[in-house]
Amino acid sequence: MKKKLNIAMIGYKFMGKAHSNAWKQVSRFFETPLEPVMKVVCGRNEEQVKEAAQRFGWQEYSTSWEEVVARKDIDVVDICTPGDSHLPITLAAAENKKAILCEKPLANTITEAEQMLAAVKQNAVIHMICHNYRRVPAVTLARQLIDDGSLGEIFHYRGTYLQDWLVNPNVPRVWRVEKAKAGSGALGDIASHSVDLSRYLVGEITEVASLLKTFISERPVEPGSSTMAPVDVDDAALSLVKFDSGAVGTIEGSRFATGRKNYNRFEINGSRGSIAFNLERLNELQFYSEEGANSGFRTILATEPTHPYFGGWWPPGHIIGYEHSFTHTVLDLIKAIDEQKIPTPNFEDGVRNQKVLDAIERASGSQRWEAVD
Amino acid sequence: MKKKLNIAMIGYKFMGKAHSNAWKQVSRFFETPLEPVMKVVCGRNEEQVKEAAQRFGWQEYSTSWEEVVARKDIDVVDICTPGDSHLPITLAAAENKKAILCEKPLANTITEAEQMLAAVKQNAVIHMICHNYRRVPAVTLARQLIDDGSLGEIFHYRGTYLQDWLVNPNVPRVWRVEKAKAGSGALGDIASHSVDLSRYLVGEITEVASLLKTFISERPVEPGSSTMAPVDVDDAALSLVKFDSGAVGTIEGSRFATGRKNYNRFEINGSRGSIAFNLERLNELQFYSEEGANSGFRTILATEPTHPYFGGWWPPGHIIGYEHSFTHTVLDLIKAIDEQKIPTPNFEDGVRNQKVLDAIERASGSQRWEAVD
Amino acid sequence: MKKKLNIAMIGYKFMGKAHSNAWKQVSRFFETPLEPVMKVVCGRNEEQVKEAAQRFGWQEYSTSWEEVVARKDIDVVDICTPGDSHLPITLAAAENKKAILCEKPLANTITEAEQMLAAVKQNAVIHMICHNYRRVPAVTLARQLIDDGSLGEIFHYRGTYLQDWLVNPNVPRVWRVEKAKAGSGALGDIASHSVDLSRYLVGEITEVASLLKTFISERPVEPGSSTMAPVDVDDAALSLVKFDSGAVGTIEGSRFATGRKNYNRFEINGSRGSIAFNLERLNELQFYSEEGANSGFRTILATEPTHPYFGGWWPPGHIIGYEHSFTHTVLDLIKAIDEQKIPTPNFEDGVRNQKVLDAIERASGSQRWEAVD
Amino acid sequence: MKKKLNIAMIGYKFMGKAHSNAWKQVSRFFETPLEPVMKVVCGRNEEQVKEAAQRFGWQEYSTSWEEVVARKDIDVVDICTPGDSHLPITLAAAENKKAILCEKPLANTITEAEQMLAAVKQNAVIHMICHNYRRVPAVTLARQLIDDGSLGEIFHYRGTYLQDWLVNPNVPRVWRVEKAKAGSGALGDIASHSVDLSRYLVGEITEVASLLKTFISERPVEPGSSTMAPVDVDDAALSLVKFDSGAVGTIEGSRFATGRKNYNRFEINGSRGSIAFNLERLNELQFYSEEGANSGFRTILATEPTHPYFGGWWPPGHIIGYEHSFTHTVLDLIKAIDEQKIPTPNFEDGVRNQKVLDAIERASGSQRWEAVD
Repeated sequence: MKKKLNIAMIGYKFMGKAHSNAWKQVSRFFETPLEPVMKVVCGRNEEQVKEAAQRFGWQEYSTSWEEVVARKDIDVVDICTPGDSHLPITLAAAENKKAILCEKPLANTITEAEQMLAAVKQNAVIHMICHNYRRVPAVTLARQLIDDGSLGEIFHYRGTYLQDWLVNPNVPRVWRVEKAKAGSGALGDIASHSVDLSRYLVGEITEVASLLKTFISERPVEPGSSTMAPVDVDDAALSLVKFDSGAVGTIEGSRFATGRKNYNRFEINGSRGSIAFNLERLNELQFYSEEGANSGFRTILATEPTHPYFGGWWPPGHIIGYEHSFTHTVLDLIKAIDEQKIPTPNFEDGVRNQKVLDAIERASGSQRWEAVD
Repeated sequence: MKKKLNIAMIGYKFMGKAHSNAWKQVSRFFETPLEPVMKVVCGRNEEQVKEAAQRFGWQEYSTSWEEVVARKDIDVVDICTPGDSHLPITLAAAENKKAILCEKPLANTITEAEQMLAAVKQNAVIHMICHNYRRVPAVTLARQLIDDGSLGEIFHYRGTYLQDWLVNPNVPRVWRVEKAKAGSGALGDIASHSVDLSRYLVGEITEVASLLKTFISERPVEPGSSTMAPVDVDDAALSLVKFDSGAVGTIEGSRFATGRKNYNRFEINGSRGSIAFNLERLNELQFYSEEGANSGFRTILATEPTHPYFGGWWPPGHIIGYEHSFTHTVLDLIKAIDEQKIPTPNFEDGVRNQKVLDAIERASGSQRWEAVD
Repeated sequence: MKKKLNIAMIGYKFMGKAHSNAWKQVSRFFETPLEPVMKVVCGRNEEQVKEAAQRFGWQEYSTSWEEVVARKDIDVVDICTPGDSHLPITLAAAENKKAILCEKPLANTITEAEQMLAAVKQNAVIHMICHNYRRVPAVTLARQLIDDGSLGEIFHYRGTYLQDWLVNPNVPRVWRVEKAKAGSGALGDIASHSVDLSRYLVGEITEVASLLKTFISERPVEPGSSTMAPVDVDDAALSLVKFDSGAVGTIEGSRFATGRKNYNRFEINGSRGSIAFNLERLNELQFYSEEGANSGFRTILATEPTHPYFGGWWPPGHIIGYEHSFTHTVLDLIKAIDEQKIPTPNFEDGVRNQKVLDAIERASGSQRWEAVD
Repeated sequence: MKKKLNIAMIGYKFMGKAHSNAWKQVSRFFETPLEPVMKVVCGRNEEQVKEAAQRFGWQEYSTSWEEVVARKDIDVVDICTPGDSHLPITLAAAENKKAILCEKPLANTITEAEQMLAAVKQNAVIHMICHNYRRVPAVTLARQLIDDGSLGEIFHYRGTYLQDWLVNPNVPRVWRVEKAKAGSGALGDIASHSVDLSRYLVGEITEVASLLKTFISERPVEPGSSTMAPVDVDDAALSLVKFDSGAVGTIEGSRFATGRKNYNRFEINGSRGSIAFNLERLNELQFYSEEGANSGFRTILATEPTHPYFGGWWPPGHIIGYEHSFTHTVLDLIKAIDEQKIPTPNFEDGVRNQKVLDAIERASGSQRWEAVD
């Protein structure tokens, strides 16, 4: 019988649903060294959190994260709340020696992010940040191709994460467009994914130039309301970036790209080949290998048993969905906990990511290139 | 508290895994009127079925389907075995008044299929055949577009279901290429899906011409073995079809289409528009609406809350996988059981599908057009 | 100074325009051993043929093809008229020892086609049929890949030539839908291209089953007229084919595929790889080479200097248009004339193509498989 | 009989070939109010220019542009030389009251560009800059869609012009990588096209941030030589741009994007819709029109008779090539000369384009946002 691993999840909305599903599914499809147990879900609204517990299959629910993270029987704290609460939850969880999985961005400010990193280090707990797109099989495959030299020296990274859900001016001022809660707009929410992928695939960013833009400056406080509240975050974040390696790139996030729903695309050009990926077709990796006149971008359907993570799923060509980037994330977290190793991406990555976001924000203000600290 | 619905599943391999997942997931993402309970999984090999029960989350396991289908506490029998056993299981399950979900093809012969249909009718039990691709959101959307007249009068159906797993002559003679177990090859396994989709979207097929082809006539009995066994099924099945409506079409299944992994594609052309779909990009529907010079095939990402079934899942652009065609199937079966209505596709559809397959087989032999009975 | 090659073209509509352009362009972009001179264009309507001569750059015009093909100074007769006039023009041109380029289909009946072949053989003149798509660079490249073994043994040919210009019932009964002039409908006009490509790439077709369909049985005699004339040709032609090599396939032509404008697509699957091509993206060849998990269909942009014919044009990635399939055709005809060799495809191919079309027509009537004579 | 328009072309390499073809073809496919006559081609190397005259169909050749532009019988001077000679030729041509078509970029410096503009204005001659991609039918269609409001308010422009011909370090230091001749590298050669398209489609750029990068700093002086010469231009030019309208964008040109041959792509997102275009598939325009759940990016095949310029060519779906962007350019120049109107883009556009390039170059040096003068 496998040893149990008791999970407590804080937050139960969009990310809570995705994480719950991952915890529920992981042992059905993969050999996990420990058996995750969905112990308790935590939220402020009792009725809603109760409903969520039942819906997603958590054994218990609670309205006090403080109590939950202090519970003896909890092994892992999974933080799915907005960025402004990541710090206090992490501090408490770390003090209680829990392994921590935290949604991105790690925090709304660098200072907070660094406090969080210090806390997990000081308490020597396992920590991971949920940049789940690293574990889309096609993306992990991209990394393998880079690692094995298939792309040669990398020249370019071109990352765009495009959505369109804010184009409609009637969309109300939800928390994701409120600076106090979300920290920033498209920058922290989606461009941060592109930043993480660039770090995963190309390396550290050293300098940035940028432009943050808000197209619609106020929105209804509620759906249908005529009372307006200011939008104090960016609708779009555009940047030029220099990598430590000498590669150069563009990173853009926008919620104003009409027709693009979840278009998290990157293209990487190297001296021997190139790759391109788009989250809307997440089972596919475009790969160009320079081999003369009959070269061409090929569509690798990353669904073979030998492809990253796919062995757990279905026969070739039977594609998987968005949700399993989380399943693969918790799989590797469980393994890391079993081996008592710090997985990647972890809070170090979270801090580094935050520093890039911070430099982008500074550069937008200073109107000049800014170094990433 | 929702009423329970106790499920027994017979068979636990590829389809067993997919069905188990569907039963496990359906209530997490959809409001089901009844709560499915994964009661018992059944198989001949005790060790394996025990492992499957544990892996997939079935409460019990059994090596006797005869006992299982007779159990008082079982409400639904879900048949995931090869085609040669569908008849006896169905007869017993129907006699015991169980609702039945049966994998396709309904049976290996028309006679068997008709016996099965007679049994479920006589016993007045709910019956459904698992042609799951009808419930891929983009496919259900295709049907909606046809129903609302967006395509006008339909002229053409062009269905190809292409795979390539048999191109390698070292692939052994598994049950899927053994006539006694599988009934036929590409015809019953994959072309049958294309037949079902054509019936769902265009209507009844009345006549067929065809060509069944076996490219490799013997295969190793086991992986690596030098003992060969004859392949007595088709590697590829090609047909021309006439629909009752006056539309015409081609339907082809092949396991010899190198590079095509699960390329279940159809295109339908009507007087006002056209649609095209490919299972390898199952979240997308290509739709052409005739509206003058600036018309064009558009890629509908069938991931909006208003699209069929997608409301249960994720925000727009966050694509789902192959497996959820099963989740949607069991969702509708549960609803049908609750309402005591026969869902579609059901055993009638199974028989009709079988008759088309039979006509294709006859036409290949007679070298002429054959009517579907 | 290069020797001149005097051309006479009969017919000046769509194909006349395309051929004129080819004769005009070929020496600008390629080294031709002879210098083609656009001597005379011929048609029945004096005003129109005069205008065409001026527009397309022919030195003279004539309303008598009989006179033209008898002229001493003419070296090549280029036949761009409807199929019903190909025979008499060919007979006269051959007798006058002219090299002949003839538009496809070679004739409206096999008997006529065979008479034409006999005439060019008896008179020992150079002859070529204008199946221009063989000389789209990507298609010629496809042939090279097959010839060098990149596809291995070929299993499948899947050819569809789809257009939609007849979906509108107000389109009048032009000559292309009149059996007396065009011989057949989609079959001879477009499916014949797909037949030719299959012969070029896979080999001879030995047997066919088929279905010819007319969706709209009468059309206005003139645009806007309320007087109707019967449509006595097929709107769509569907067939199953067996190749001499053991490969099997489908070939379909339709003018009722709404949204498809010039969708001349084929896919070929072999034991080592596959290719796919679509005339609407004629600079691209899809190529799959089986090389393990990271295989995938690659898009070869057939615009490298080393690709067939492309060296004459532009730098890589600067795509060419439909019209240059004709330029490449007359280039090779000029070379063949210079070397006094019979090029391909020639009237032998024309006859063979016609025999396949004839078998398709017979099979549609007999409702059974028919051998190609 | 149409009035003649005598053309003199200076330069006969890549652009000379493309322009020659345009002059040769335009009257074959379009009704031109004047009849262009390919009078004289001019170059420094007598042997080569003679060969070019013959090849491309110019009546005469000359080695002195000074003489040519002074000839009484010349109406139009078409400048196809590298950027460093545009100024003197323009000054002389303008003084001689010739209409001028000049290849882009207008000049290597703003000062020169402004002198050129002053000269054509002072002499009141017709002037046009050859930003030929504005007249790809799909691009002109894009402009029509923007003009008719189909995109609503524009938020984003995303332009990338990617090639890969310099990735190979053995490619010698041709004039295109020599600052003295070319002015800049990817910036002036290809990013300048993207700048022009952004101005054509979105409007004036007011500020830029940028990054110019040289990946390979020296190259062989000749193919195969071991003597190296420094590369003093950019291999890649990346920029962020702000438009006068409030739209924001990225513009990037690179010759180091392995696998991209002539990937001149742009995407524009507006409040009501989006468009995307890629020169490698130049007959297609991607268009998204916001109309609810069944919206999607559609592929408009810009080959209908009603599409810009296409009426002169072939039936729908019969695609045209790169070269005809030039044919359409000289068509509109001829019309402008006939009507004595200044066409667009003209030298004003050339100067404005130059100013954007200059700002990009300054911004790369200053490491901050720079205003476009």
